[in-house]
Amino acid sequence: MKRTSFADMPCSVARSLDCVGEWWSLLIVRDVFNGVRRFDDLLSHLGISRNVLTDRLKSLVDNGILKRHRYQERPARYDYRLTEKGMDLWPVLVSFMGWGDKWLAGEEGPPGTLVHRHCNATTTPIMICSACGEPLGAGHLRLHVRSAAHTAAAKG
Amino acid sequence: MKRTSFADMPCSVARSLDCVGEWWSLLIVRDVFNGVRRFDDLLSHLGISRNVLTDRLKSLVDNGILKRHRYQERPARYDYRLTEKGMDLWPVLVSFMGWGDKWLAGEEGPPGTLVHRHCNATTTPIMICSACGEPLGAGHLRLHVRSAAHTAAAKG
Repeated sequence: MKRTSFADMPCSVARSLDCVGEWWSLLIVRDVFNGVRRFDDLLSHLGISRNVLTDRLKSLVDNGILKRHRYQERPARYDYRLTEKGMDLWPVLVSFMGWGDKWLAGEEGPPGTLVHRHCNATTTPIMICSACGEPLGAGHLRLHVRSAAHTAAAKG
Repeated sequence: MKRTSFADMPCSVARSLDCVGEWWSLLIVRDVFNGVRRFDDLLSHLGISRNVLTDRLKSLVDNGILKRHRYQERPARYDYRLTEKGMDLWPVLVSFMGWGDKWLAGEEGPPGTLVHRHCNATTTPIMICSACGEPLGAGHLRLHVRSAAHTAAAKG
Protein backbone atom coordinates (compact mmCIF):
# COMPACT_ATOMS: atom_id res chain seq x y z
CA MET A 1 0.00 0.00 0.00
CA LYS A 2 1.36 3.38 -1.01
CA ARG A 3 1.61 5.57 2.05
CA THR A 4 0.31 9.13 2.14
CA SER A 5 2.80 11.67 0.85
CA PHE A 6 3.63 14.54 3.19
CA ALA A 7 5.51 16.40 0.44
CA ASP A 8 2.70 18.80 -0.42
CA MET A 9 1.95 19.82 3.16
CA PRO A 10 2.96 23.44 3.82
CA CYS A 11 5.26 22.41 6.66
CA SER A 12 9.00 21.76 6.63
CA VAL A 13 8.72 18.99 9.22
CA ALA A 14 6.23 17.13 7.02
CA ARG A 15 8.31 17.64 3.88
CA SER A 16 11.44 16.43 5.66
CA LEU A 17 9.66 13.32 6.86
CA ASP A 18 8.55 12.69 3.29
CA CYS A 19 12.26 12.53 2.35
CA VAL A 20 13.73 10.61 5.27
CA GLY A 21 10.80 9.46 7.42
CA GLU A 22 10.64 6.04 5.82
CA TRP A 23 11.44 3.25 8.28
CA TRP A 24 15.24 2.54 8.09
CA SER A 25 16.21 5.63 6.11
CA LEU A 26 17.64 7.62 9.01
CA LEU A 27 19.52 4.58 10.31
CA ILE A 28 21.16 4.20 6.89
CA VAL A 29 22.11 7.90 6.98
CA ARG A 30 23.48 7.39 10.51
CA ASP A 31 25.62 4.46 9.34
CA VAL A 32 27.02 6.36 6.37
CA PHE A 33 27.90 9.22 8.77
CA ASN A 34 29.79 6.67 10.85
CA GLY A 35 31.73 5.32 7.86
CA VAL A 36 29.61 2.28 6.96
CA ARG A 37 29.31 2.94 3.22
CA ARG A 38 29.22 -0.28 1.24
CA PHE A 39 26.09 -2.21 0.44
CA ASP A 40 27.25 -5.45 2.07
CA ASP A 41 28.50 -3.65 5.18
CA LEU A 42 25.18 -1.81 5.56
CA LEU A 43 23.38 -5.10 5.03
CA SER A 44 25.20 -6.88 7.85
CA HIS A 45 25.37 -3.87 10.17
CA LEU A 46 21.66 -3.07 9.94
CA GLY A 47 20.35 -6.63 9.79
CA ILE A 48 18.00 -5.46 7.06
CA SER A 49 16.75 -7.43 4.06
CA ARG A 50 18.52 -6.97 0.73
CA ASN A 51 15.32 -5.76 -0.95
CA VAL A 52 14.50 -3.16 1.68
CA LEU A 53 18.07 -1.84 1.71
CA THR A 54 18.08 -1.57 -2.10
CA ASP A 55 14.77 0.26 -2.00
CA ARG A 56 15.81 2.71 0.74
CA LEU A 57 19.19 3.45 -0.85
CA LYS A 58 17.46 4.21 -4.15
CA SER A 59 15.05 6.55 -2.38
CA LEU A 60 17.89 8.31 -0.54
CA VAL A 61 19.82 8.73 -3.83
CA ASP A 62 16.68 9.93 -5.67
CA ASN A 63 16.11 12.47 -2.91
CA GLY A 64 19.68 13.76 -3.23
CA ILE A 65 20.73 12.68 0.28
CA LEU A 66 23.22 9.99 -0.75
CA LYS A 67 25.24 9.62 -3.95
CA ARG A 68 26.84 6.52 -5.43
CA HIS A 69 30.59 6.85 -5.45
CA ARG A 70 33.00 4.71 -7.49
CA TYR A 71 35.77 3.79 -5.09
CA GLN A 72 37.49 1.22 -7.33
CA GLU A 73 38.01 1.22 -11.11
CA ARG A 74 38.62 -2.41 -12.20
CA PRO A 75 36.33 -4.01 -11.47
CA ALA A 76 34.10 -0.98 -10.84
CA ARG A 77 32.89 -0.91 -7.24
CA TYR A 78 30.60 1.61 -5.63
CA ASP A 79 29.78 2.78 -2.16
CA TYR A 80 27.47 5.47 -0.80
CA ARG A 81 28.49 8.93 0.34
CA LEU A 82 26.52 11.78 1.84
CA THR A 83 25.76 14.79 -0.34
CA GLU A 84 25.78 18.27 1.22
CA LYS A 85 22.02 17.86 1.69
CA GLY A 86 22.65 14.55 3.47
CA MET A 87 25.43 16.00 5.63
CA ASP A 88 23.00 18.69 6.74
CA LEU A 89 20.92 16.02 8.48
CA TRP A 90 23.42 15.87 11.36
CA PRO A 91 21.29 18.02 13.72
CA VAL A 92 18.37 15.59 13.24
CA LEU A 93 20.58 12.64 14.22
CA VAL A 94 22.14 14.53 17.12
CA SER A 95 18.68 15.52 18.39
CA PHE A 96 17.39 11.96 18.22
CA MET A 97 20.53 10.75 19.97
CA GLY A 98 20.19 13.30 22.76
CA TRP A 99 16.56 12.40 23.32
CA GLY A 100 17.27 8.66 23.34
CA ASP A 101 20.22 9.18 25.69
CA LYS A 102 17.99 11.02 28.14
CA TRP A 103 14.80 8.98 27.95
CA LEU A 104 15.61 5.50 26.67
CA ALA A 105 19.10 4.58 27.82
CA GLY A 106 18.14 2.70 31.00
CA GLU A 107 20.57 1.74 33.72
CA GLU A 108 23.52 1.07 31.43
CA GLY A 109 23.56 4.71 30.37
CA PRO A 110 23.91 6.05 26.83
CA PRO A 111 25.59 3.63 24.39
CA GLY A 112 27.76 6.33 22.88
CA THR A 113 29.06 9.85 23.31
CA LEU A 114 29.92 12.61 20.87
CA VAL A 115 33.36 14.19 20.65
CA HIS A 116 33.79 17.65 19.14
CA ARG A 117 36.74 17.32 16.72
CA HIS A 118 37.75 20.95 17.14
CA CYS A 119 38.12 21.06 20.94
CA ASN A 120 38.48 17.29 21.42
CA ALA A 121 36.07 17.26 24.37
CA THR A 122 33.02 15.10 24.94
CA THR A 123 30.09 17.27 23.97
CA THR A 124 26.33 17.45 24.47
CA PRO A 125 25.20 19.80 21.73
CA ILE A 126 23.01 22.67 22.93
CA MET A 127 20.56 24.67 20.82
CA ILE A 128 20.70 28.43 21.22
CA CYS A 129 18.66 31.29 19.76
CA SER A 130 20.32 32.88 16.73
CA ALA A 131 19.00 36.29 17.80
CA CYS A 132 19.85 36.54 21.51
CA GLY A 133 22.23 33.60 21.99
CA GLU A 134 20.34 32.15 24.97
CA PRO A 135 19.94 28.35 25.28
CA LEU A 136 16.54 27.21 24.03
CA GLY A 137 14.18 24.91 25.91
CA ALA A 138 10.82 23.24 25.49
CA GLY A 139 8.09 25.86 25.12
CA HIS A 140 10.51 28.68 24.27
CA LEU A 141 9.59 28.67 20.59
CA ARG A 142 6.41 29.72 18.85
CA LEU A 143 5.63 28.77 15.25
CA HIS A 144 4.64 31.67 13.05
CA VAL A 145 2.99 30.54 9.82
CA ARG A 146 4.04 32.90 7.06
CA SER A 147 0.98 33.72 4.99
CA ALA A 148 -2.79 33.49 5.02
CA ALA A 149 -2.59 31.06 2.10
CA HIS A 150 -0.29 28.81 4.11
CA THR A 151 -2.53 29.00 7.14
CA ALA A 152 -5.60 28.13 5.09
CA ALA A 153 -3.80 25.17 3.51
CA ALA A 154 -2.48 24.00 6.86
CA LYS A 155 -5.92 24.12 8.39
CA GLY A 156 -7.51 22.70 5.21
CA MET B 1 3.40 -7.15 8.81
CA LYS B 2 5.17 -6.34 12.05
CA ARG B 3 8.15 -4.14 11.37
CA THR B 4 11.57 -4.76 12.83
CA SER B 5 12.02 -3.25 16.27
CA PHE B 6 14.99 -0.93 16.71
CA ALA B 7 14.52 -0.84 20.49
CA ASP B 8 17.25 -3.34 21.30
CA MET B 9 19.92 -1.76 19.13
CA PRO B 10 22.67 -0.18 21.24
CA CYS B 11 22.13 3.22 19.65
CA SER B 12 20.04 6.13 20.90
CA VAL B 13 19.04 7.14 17.36
CA ALA B 14 17.63 3.67 16.72
CA ARG B 15 15.85 3.56 20.07
CA SER B 16 14.33 6.98 19.48
CA LEU B 17 13.07 5.94 16.05
CA ASP B 18 11.52 2.90 17.67
CA CYS B 19 9.45 5.30 19.80
CA VAL B 20 8.55 8.01 17.30
CA GLY B 21 9.77 6.80 13.90
CA GLU B 22 6.40 5.38 12.93
CA TRP B 23 4.89 7.15 9.96
CA TRP B 24 2.66 10.02 11.27
CA SER B 25 3.87 9.97 14.88
CA LEU B 26 6.11 13.03 14.67
CA LEU B 27 3.44 14.97 12.79
CA ILE B 28 1.01 14.25 15.62
CA VAL B 29 3.61 15.46 18.13
CA ARG B 30 4.15 18.57 15.98
CA ASP B 31 0.41 19.29 15.97
CA VAL B 32 0.09 18.89 19.74
CA PHE B 33 3.04 21.29 20.15
CA ASN B 34 1.09 23.76 18.02
CA GLY B 35 -2.06 23.44 20.12
CA VAL B 36 -4.03 20.90 18.05
CA ARG B 37 -4.95 18.52 20.89
CA ARG B 38 -8.36 16.97 20.34
CA PHE B 39 -8.95 13.77 18.41
CA ASP B 40 -11.32 15.34 15.88
CA ASP B 41 -9.08 18.35 15.32
CA LEU B 42 -6.06 16.10 14.74
CA LEU B 43 -8.18 13.99 12.38
CA SER B 44 -9.15 16.93 10.20
CA HIS B 45 -5.81 18.73 10.43
CA LEU B 46 -3.74 15.71 9.47
CA GLY B 47 -6.12 14.20 6.92
CA ILE B 48 -5.35 10.82 8.49
CA SER B 49 -7.72 7.87 8.85
CA ARG B 50 -9.51 7.38 12.16
CA ASN B 51 -7.91 3.94 12.65
CA VAL B 52 -4.37 5.10 12.02
CA LEU B 53 -4.79 8.12 14.31
CA THR B 54 -6.20 5.92 17.10
CA ASP B 55 -3.30 3.51 16.69
CA ARG B 56 -0.61 6.21 16.68
CA LEU B 57 -2.09 8.05 19.67
CA LYS B 58 -2.16 4.80 21.64
CA SER B 59 1.46 4.15 20.77
CA LEU B 60 2.48 7.70 21.74
CA VAL B 61 0.61 7.36 25.07
CA ASP B 62 2.11 3.88 25.69
CA ASN B 63 5.56 5.31 25.05
CA GLY B 64 4.98 8.13 27.54
CA ILE B 65 5.15 10.92 24.95
CA LEU B 66 1.52 12.01 25.15
CA LYS B 67 -0.97 11.75 27.99
CA ARG B 68 -4.76 11.83 27.88
CA HIS B 69 -6.05 14.88 29.70
CA ARG B 70 -9.64 15.41 30.87
CA TYR B 71 -10.50 18.96 29.84
CA GLN B 72 -14.23 18.77 30.64
CA GLU B 73 -16.06 16.97 33.47
CA ARG B 74 -19.68 16.47 32.36
CA PRO B 75 -19.70 14.87 29.94
CA ALA B 76 -16.10 13.75 30.34
CA ARG B 77 -14.02 14.88 27.38
CA TYR B 78 -10.34 14.24 26.75
CA ASP B 79 -7.59 15.72 24.69
CA TYR B 80 -3.88 14.93 24.34
CA ARG B 81 -1.05 16.79 26.02
CA LEU B 82 2.71 16.38 25.82
CA THR B 83 4.50 14.81 28.76
CA GLU B 84 7.95 16.10 29.73
CA LYS B 85 9.39 13.31 27.56
CA GLY B 86 7.23 14.51 24.68
CA MET B 87 8.17 18.17 25.23
CA ASP B 88 11.80 17.14 25.00
CA LEU B 89 11.27 16.22 21.35
CA TRP B 90 11.34 19.89 20.35
CA PRO B 91 14.96 19.78 19.08
CA VAL B 92 14.02 16.91 16.74
CA LEU B 93 11.15 18.95 15.28
CA VAL B 94 13.27 22.10 15.06
CA SER B 95 16.04 20.16 13.29
CA PHE B 96 13.64 18.65 10.77
CA MET B 97 12.11 22.08 10.20
CA GLY B 98 15.50 23.71 9.62
CA TRP B 99 16.51 21.03 7.15
CA GLY B 100 13.21 21.23 5.26
CA ASP B 101 13.41 25.04 5.20
CA LYS B 102 16.87 24.87 3.64
CA TRP B 103 16.47 21.99 1.22
CA LEU B 104 12.79 21.52 0.41
CA ALA B 105 11.11 24.92 0.56
CA GLY B 106 11.35 25.82 -3.14
CA GLU B 107 10.72 29.26 -4.55
CA GLU B 108 8.00 30.20 -2.09
CA GLY B 109 10.44 30.02 0.79
CA PRO B 110 9.86 28.34 4.16
CA PRO B 111 6.19 28.01 5.13
CA GLY B 112 6.80 29.15 8.70
CA THR B 113 9.28 30.79 11.00
CA LEU B 114 10.10 30.36 14.68
CA VAL B 115 9.86 33.14 17.22
CA HIS B 116 11.82 32.97 20.48
CA ARG B 117 9.29 33.88 23.19
CA HIS B 118 11.97 35.33 25.47
CA CYS B 119 13.53 37.85 23.08
CA ASN B 120 10.55 38.02 20.68
CA ALA B 121 12.78 37.81 17.61
CA THR B 122 12.56 35.46 14.65
CA THR B 123 15.11 32.77 15.35
CA THR B 124 17.01 30.07 13.49
CA PRO B 125 18.21 27.80 16.28
CA ILE B 126 21.93 27.03 16.20
CA MET B 127 23.65 24.03 17.77
CA ILE B 128 26.77 24.76 19.77
CA CYS B 129 29.32 22.58 21.58
CA SER B 130 28.61 22.29 25.31
CA ALA B 131 32.34 22.22 26.01
CA CYS B 132 33.78 25.10 23.96
CA GLY B 133 30.65 26.98 22.93
CA GLU B 134 31.52 27.06 19.22
CA PRO B 135 28.76 26.52 16.60
CA LEU B 136 28.74 22.94 15.34
CA GLY B 137 28.66 21.93 11.69
CA ALA B 138 28.53 18.80 9.56
CA GLY B 139 31.60 16.66 10.18
CA HIS B 140 32.51 18.40 13.46
CA LEU B 141 31.31 15.50 15.59
CA ARG B 142 32.71 12.03 16.02
CA LEU B 143 30.74 9.21 17.62
CA HIS B 144 32.54 7.42 20.42
CA VAL B 145 30.93 4.06 21.26
CA ARG B 146 31.22 3.53 24.98
CA SER B 147 32.28 -0.05 25.59
CA ALA B 148 33.67 -3.08 23.82
CA ALA B 149 30.39 -4.88 24.51
CA HIS B 150 28.48 -2.09 22.82
CA THR B 151 30.83 -2.10 19.86
CA ALA B 152 30.54 -5.85 19.45
CA ALA B 153 26.76 -5.65 19.64
CA ALA B 154 26.67 -2.74 17.20
CA LYS B 155 28.81 -4.62 14.70
CA GLY B 156 27.04 -7.92 15.35
